[in-house]
Amino acid sequence: MTTRSRASKPLPRNAFYAQSGGVTAVINASACGVIETARRYPRQIRKLYAGRNGIVGALEEDLIDVGRESRATIRGLRYTPAGAFGSARYKLKTIEQDRAKYERLIEVFRAHDIGYFFYNGGNDSMDTAHKVSLIGQQLGYPVTCVGVPKTVDNDLPGTDCCPGFGSVAKYVAVATREAALDVASMARTSTKVFVLEVMGRHAGWIAAAGGLAAATEGDLPQIILFPEIPFEKERFLARVRALVEERGYCVVVASEGAADASGAFLAESGTRDAFGHAQLGGVAPVVAEMIREACGYKFHWAVADYLQRAARHIASKTDVEQAYAVGKAAVELAVKGLNDVMPVIIRKSASPYRWKIGSVPLESVANLERKLPRDYITRDGFGITAAARRYLEPLIAGEDYPPYRKGLPAYVTLKAVSVPRKLEATFKV
Amino acid sequence: MTTRSRASKPLPRNAFYAQSGGVTAVINASACGVIETARRYPRQIRKLYAGRNGIVGALEEDLIDVGRESRATIRGLRYTPAGAFGSARYKLKTIEQDRAKYERLIEVFRAHDIGYFFYNGGNDSMDTAHKVSLIGQQLGYPVTCVGVPKTVDNDLPGTDCCPGFGSVAKYVAVATREAALDVASMARTSTKVFVLEVMGRHAGWIAAAGGLAAATEGDLPQIILFPEIPFEKERFLARVRALVEERGYCVVVASEGAADASGAFLAESGTRDAFGHAQLGGVAPVVAEMIREACGYKFHWAVADYLQRAARHIASKTDVEQAYAVGKAAVELAVKGLNDVMPVIIRKSASPYRWKIGSVPLESVANLERKLPRDYITRDGFGITAAARRYLEPLIAGEDYPPYRKGLPAYVTLKAVSVPRKLEATFKV
Repeated sequence: MTTRSRASKPLPRNAFYAQSGGVTAVINASACGVIETARRYPRQIRKLYAGRNGIVGALEEDLIDVGRESRATIRGLRYTPAGAFGSARYKLKTIEQDRAKYERLIEVFRAHDIGYFFYNGGNDSMDTAHKVSLIGQQLGYPVTCVGVPKTVDNDLPGTDCCPGFGSVAKYVAVATREAALDVASMARTSTKVFVLEVMGRHAGWIAAAGGLAAATEGDLPQIILFPEIPFEKERFLARVRALVEERGYCVVVASEGAADASGAFLAESGTRDAFGHAQLGGVAPVVAEMIREACGYKFHWAVADYLQRAARHIASKTDVEQAYAVGKAAVELAVKGLNDVMPVIIRKSASPYRWKIGSVPLESVANLERKLPRDYITRDGFGITAAARRYLEPLIAGEDYPPYRKGLPAYVTLKAVSVPRKLEATFKV
Repeated sequence: MTTRSRASKPLPRNAFYAQSGGVTAVINASACGVIETARRYPRQIRKLYAGRNGIVGALEEDLIDVGRESRATIRGLRYTPAGAFGSARYKLKTIEQDRAKYERLIEVFRAHDIGYFFYNGGNDSMDTAHKVSLIGQQLGYPVTCVGVPKTVDNDLPGTDCCPGFGSVAKYVAVATREAALDVASMARTSTKVFVLEVMGRHAGWIAAAGGLAAATEGDLPQIILFPEIPFEKERFLARVRALVEERGYCVVVASEGAADASGAFLAESGTRDAFGHAQLGGVAPVVAEMIREACGYKFHWAVADYLQRAARHIASKTDVEQAYAVGKAAVELAVKGLNDVMPVIIRKSASPYRWKIGSVPLESVANLERKLPRDYITRDGFGITAAARRYLEPLIAGEDYPPYRKGLPAYVTLKAVSVPRKLEATFKV
C-alpha cells in the first residue's frame, strides 16, 4: 500500500487568487475573469480563495472564501475599480533571504489544499509567483503558479500592453483634452500654462498618452516631459515661451518620473518646508513655479495621482476586455496543466486593431522593465510620434461605463467572508 | 418728419453673447441654449454675435459671427466643455471708474445694431450686465441685458443651484469614491491617507459634494475641510488618527479655501521655495505633509484643479439640462421684453426632484455670494448632513455622455469667423 502525497491527490484542488501592488481601474475585471472561469472547471478547481490584502492574506492565513459572494457581485467586479480583495505592497525577496515566508506560504497552501496560485500583479509579483512555483517543487508540494498581468505603468515585458494601462491612458488623454480646452478659454486674460502631473516613475507610457489629447500632431500646444528624456530647464522654458507666444497657451503633461541628466527627480527639487527641509512634492508645482519665475505666466496645475488609476468611470473598453481575458486565460492555462507562466496580449494587427492571448514563462518577465521606445518620442523629446499613436490609440478605444445609482457609479463591495483557519502557527506581517 | 433713433428702430435687432470668468463643463450647453433659441425668434433677433474671449471681444470689437457655425457644431456645444468662444477674467468696475469702457461697449453695440446682451457668468458678470443696462439707458441706446448664470462655485444667490456646479459636484463625488476604493485596497501595507484638493475658495459647496462618495453617512472614513469651518490642526489630526486606527485608512477632501480661524489659507502656509519665499502651493500637499509629520502615515494626494470643472465626460445630466434651460430662458425673457434680469432654477420638489425656471432682477444677485449653510455641515465640522445630501443628490443625477471618436470625446471646435469691424477707433484691453 502506498501513501499518496497531497500534492498528487486527485483533482479537484482549491485555488488561491491574490492582488498585488498598486491597483488599477481593471484589476477587479481580471479577478472577475479568474473567478467566473474557475467556476467552469469544477473537475479541476474545487474552491477559490483570495488573499485578504494580497499575499499578506496568504502569509497570515487570512483567506477570503470567494464562493460566498453572489454571482451578481462577482459580475460587478468587472466594473469596480481598485482591489476588491485588498492588495499589498509586499515583495518577497530571494528564496535564500525570505525562505521562512516562502515555506509559510506553502504551509498555508498545503493546509487548504491549494493547488493553483493566480497572482495578479506586475513584474515583482511575477518574480514571486515564479519562486513559489520553484519552492513548491523543492518542498514536495507542487503548486501550479500562473501570473495575471497588471500594471498601469505598462512596463511589463513579453506582452504588447498590460491591463490597467489602457484605462489610465484614456483618463490622461481625456483629462488633457478637457483641461486644454479650459486653459485655451482662459488664456487671453488669465491662465496661460497648465501643468498636469501623471504617473510613471520609470517609464513614460502614461505621459505619452497625454499626447493623444491632440487629435493630430501639433493640434495642441503641448509639451510632454518623459522620464526617458533628461530634463533641460532652458530648452523647456524656451519651448513654453514659444508656444505661449505663438498659440496663446501651453499644456504640459509631466511624468512624475521627469528627471535631469543626473537622474535627480524634478519632484524632489526646489521646494522646502517651513523648516528648510527638502519636501517631496509633486513635479507639477515645481514645473509651474519654474515657469512663473522665468516667464511670469499665470499658471494652474493638477496632480491626478490615484484619480487616474482608479477612474473606472472612464475606463477603456479594450482594457476591460483584456483584463478579463488575461484572468480567464490564467485559469485556462492552469487547468491545462501549464505552470510558471503568464498570459500575455499579442497584437495581431494595429489597424483594424486585433489581439489574442498568448503566454510566456514567468521567469522571462520577472523583475524586468520595458521603457518607452525612443522612436515613440519626437526628436525634440517633447511629444509623441505617429508610431506611438499607432501603438496607443487602440488601447484607449471604446467606453465601458459602470451602472449608476443616485448619480454615482454603483461599484460593488464584497462580503469577504473569511475561510476558517486550519493552522495553529500564526504569522504576522 | 422725425428721425428715428437706432434704439427705437423696429425689430429684429442683433444680439451679443459672451462667456465670462472661469469656465465649466456646461457653459457651452448654455451657449447652445441661447443660440438654438435665438434662431427661433427671427422677428426679434436677426444675427447673433459672440465675444471672442468674452467681454474683451466686445471692447475690442472682436465679434464672432455665430451664424457661420453649422447646426451640428452648435448642437455639439451641448457636450463640449470650457468656453468655446473664449472667456475672460475681466471685471468692469463702477460706471464712474470705468466709464470709458462702458461707453466703448455701447459704441460697439450701436455700430453692430446689438439690442440684446446675454452675459454668461457669475456674480461679477451679473453686476456688469446690470451696469450695461443702466448706461445704455443713460446714453440713449437701451440694450436688453439678460444674465445667464454660470459658476462651479454654486455661490450665486437667487437660484437653487447654479449651472456648472452639478457637474463639478459629480466629478468630485465620483473621484472621491474611486480614490477611496483605491486607498482602501492599499492601506494594509502602504498608503493610509489620501487627500483630494477641490475648488471653492470662499464657499464649501464643491467640498461638500465629496461627502456624496459615501453611499450612506459614515460609510466612508472621510474628513471634509470646508472654508466655512476654521481649521484646527490638533482636532483634525486626532480625527485622522482615529479613522486610520478604526478603519485602516482615511480620505480627506480639502477645499482650496480651507483656512484657520484668522482666515489664513492653509494652502499658503508652510511651504517655501529654494530661496525661502513663501510658495503658493496647493492645500493638499500641505495637509498631507502635516499628517505625515504628526502621524507618520504613508499618504498620497491629488489636486484636481481644472480637471474637475472641465470634466464634461462625467457631467451631470441634470446640470447639462439646467445649463441649456437657462440659456434658452434668457432668450425667451429677452424677446418678451424683460430687461436687467437673470433666469434662475427653482426647486419645486426634492424627492422626486422637480425644477422649473424663474427669473430675478440682475441687481439682486450682482456681487453677492452664497455660502454653504451651517446645517449642511455636521456638528463636528468634518462632514455633510442629511439636509446637504437631500440638496446635493439631485444635482449630480444622471449621466450625459459625449460622443467618442478614437477613444476620446469628440468635442467640437468653432470656426469662429470674425464679424467685419465697423469702427475706426480701436480699443486694446
